[in-house]
Amino acid sequence: MKVMVLGSDGYIGHTLTKVLLEDGHMVTGVDNYSRRGRVSIVGSNSLTPIESIMERHITLRQKYLSNYNSLNYTLGKSYIHVKEAIRSFQPECIVHLAEQPSAPWSMINNRNAAETQQENVIGTLDILWAMREVCPDAHLLKLGTMGEYGTPNCVIPEGDIPGRCIGAPTDHTQVSDCPMSGLPFPKSPGSFYHLSKVHDTHNITFACKNWGLSSTDIMQGVVYGVKVNPDENDNLTRFDYDEYFGTAINRFCAQAIIGHPLTVYGKGKQTRGFLPLKDSIQCLLLAMTNPPDKGEYRVFNQFEDIYSINTLANIVCHEASQLGLNVSIEHIPNPRKEMEEHYYLPDHNKLRKLGYHSSNIHNCIRDLLIDILPYKDRVNKEVILPVTTWE
Amino acid sequence: MKVMVLGSDGYIGHTLTKVLLEDGHMVTGVDNYSRRGRVSIVGSNSLTPIESIMERHITLRQKYLSNYNSLNYTLGKSYIHVKEAIRSFQPECIVHLAEQPSAPWSMINNRNAAETQQENVIGTLDILWAMREVCPDAHLLKLGTMGEYGTPNCVIPEGDIPGRCIGAPTDHTQVSDCPMSGLPFPKSPGSFYHLSKVHDTHNITFACKNWGLSSTDIMQGVVYGVKVNPDENDNLTRFDYDEYFGTAINRFCAQAIIGHPLTVYGKGKQTRGFLPLKDSIQCLLLAMTNPPDKGEYRVFNQFEDIYSINTLANIVCHEASQLGLNVSIEHIPNPRKEMEEHYYLPDHNKLRKLGYHSSNIHNCIRDLLIDILPYKDRVNKEVILPVTTWE
Repeated sequence: MKVMVLGSDGYIGHTLTKVLLEDGHMVTGVDNYSRRGRVSIVGSNSLTPIESIMERHITLRQKYLSNYNSLNYTLGKSYIHVKEAIRSFQPECIVHLAEQPSAPWSMINNRNAAETQQENVIGTLDILWAMREVCPDAHLLKLGTMGEYGTPNCVIPEGDIPGRCIGAPTDHTQVSDCPMSGLPFPKSPGSFYHLSKVHDTHNITFACKNWGLSSTDIMQGVVYGVKVNPDENDNLTRFDYDEYFGTAINRFCAQAIIGHPLTVYGKGKQTRGFLPLKDSIQCLLLAMTNPPDKGEYRVFNQFEDIYSINTLANIVCHEASQLGLNVSIEHIPNPRKEMEEHYYLPDHNKLRKLGYHSSNIHNCIRDLLIDILPYKDRVNKEVILPVTTWE
Repeated sequence: MKVMVLGSDGYIGHTLTKVLLEDGHMVTGVDNYSRRGRVSIVGSNSLTPIESIMERHITLRQKYLSNYNSLNYTLGKSYIHVKEAIRSFQPECIVHLAEQPSAPWSMINNRNAAETQQENVIGTLDILWAMREVCPDAHLLKLGTMGEYGTPNCVIPEGDIPGRCIGAPTDHTQVSDCPMSGLPFPKSPGSFYHLSKVHDTHNITFACKNWGLSSTDIMQGVVYGVKVNPDENDNLTRFDYDEYFGTAINRFCAQAIIGHPLTVYGKGKQTRGFLPLKDSIQCLLLAMTNPPDKGEYRVFNQFEDIYSINTLANIVCHEASQLGLNVSIEHIPNPRKEMEEHYYLPDHNKLRKLGYHSSNIHNCIRDLLIDILPYKDRVNKEVILPVTTWE
């Protein structure tokens, strides 16, 4: 299969690129390497040592020859070039991982909020137009986030509002016919980053309906972990643990290996979907090999299971202590504005029906701790605690 | 009251500016005059002769002295300047009419789509950040569009999903408790322009919830007419009739005065909300003088009534024939992708409760025809028929 990976130098993008090439697919990667720059600007660095841009390119070219190519473009600012790249490569699937991925980063100031929405929304808009003009039969596999939904008091469907709505058991026991059936499920995102993904979702839905494009919009949970295969230790993907680009479990694990208390934001009863990196890759491959129909816009809620932050902190504590690490948990003021106790029940059946076998979170967290332990001296403690607040 | 009018050189903005000044309010107008340029680029011009930018400024300054000021800024591209303007003026209300307003224009090509979303979304985002930083107690009166909703098969509320949903009588007779109650009503917009307004709506909702800003999001129907007061004949606002910037009734009236058949897109059973310019101004003043609570995000569905395009064409025909004009109706292929027969029942009670007295559409259309008849030789027939299609 010919796959274009947008954001091929990123946390998931680089991992996916390698897996696709190893499986014999042709990959064109596109990246502007902004993640490296932004992590550096906030004073952090990948905990795992990663190759330079040039080294990565040479390594992959030497191993996979002409099956691999990489291009340096900034989506949303180079339409003609991106369109030409798509036209000449004619990908069967475009995996779009090239968005500014940090909620706290988008909340720092006006400039960051505007850059996030500009890059993400216009970047995706450009991909849609380019597909329409030069590659209308490709499958756009777009990474959204479970955070688009917020925490509504009803079951979150995978896609449109269903014919029958199911309310939270505490205050809506009945199942009712829904006159809004078939409309897009309402979104309640909680940051300018999450909002940018909601804007994307609306634009993609329209492009599929209006132009007959095909897309899978992945509402992905929070990803953790640093590799896909057990024998990958010599070439781990990047691993961020700072307040901006480090996500919850990754940050907890970085804290655990240096003996820093795990910092839970607020009550810690916030519940979200989570999945290990290897499950994310497994799911993306399943979506790729089971594409949507022509003109179809479909939604996958992609996560292994839902967990409260307190549960995750306890799992990290437990697995760390098994490895002889002494770890405590500390609740700190929540920098975000979010409900700290809430109903949460998102559907996630579609990927299972396609064959998704989920990993065991305990094993994955133990493996992650083992994977990053050799790099504990690289942790910069200054960047772990939150500085940016929502208000 | 101190009011900042963003888009003060536009169709509604210029009218509102004059009405506010006449009522004794202080107005700072902001515009980049892009409407003039864009109408010119598509080969058209305001049917009504309007003053040059400089003449308008001088006229208003001479009449209203220091109560009026005008600034030339492009929203979304001059954050520091816009913020400083808001900080120094300290408006009680910011009326935001400064968006690219044309659905067909946004569908011409990638560049127009991207410009529309960039200008509208980032422009509004900048206003929100500036309000938060330097004027958090102001009321943001933002012009959205009824087109954000699309044409759902249920009653469209004014605001969030209500506790009880009412379905279209044809297939959902029952009223049911709704587990999604309190979530934002789902949007199904039909162009990149309409999508930009939906993105704004999500951003504004978040800013109110997160920062405690106050906003009225006006879901406005399609506006027609060219003046507010009967004695305004010497200084009409701009009037566009081209396929891009001319809206349905205005375009029909321009066709009527030159004996061109009224061109109805498709079946003409598409139903939308409409209102005359003077009602739009009346409603904006009502919203201004009855501001939302601190931290409140509220939605007004702003239109006089709903009409099918066929009904409107018939009214224009009838009123034109009363004036001795001979007018026919012609159905042409629909350039847009939209349902041509559909259920449509939007609530619009909030403005009436504040005292909105709606005008009579027959009188308004007759007045409009009389107002523009003197300028019939200025119509450029080349720009009336649709060239841009949705597919």
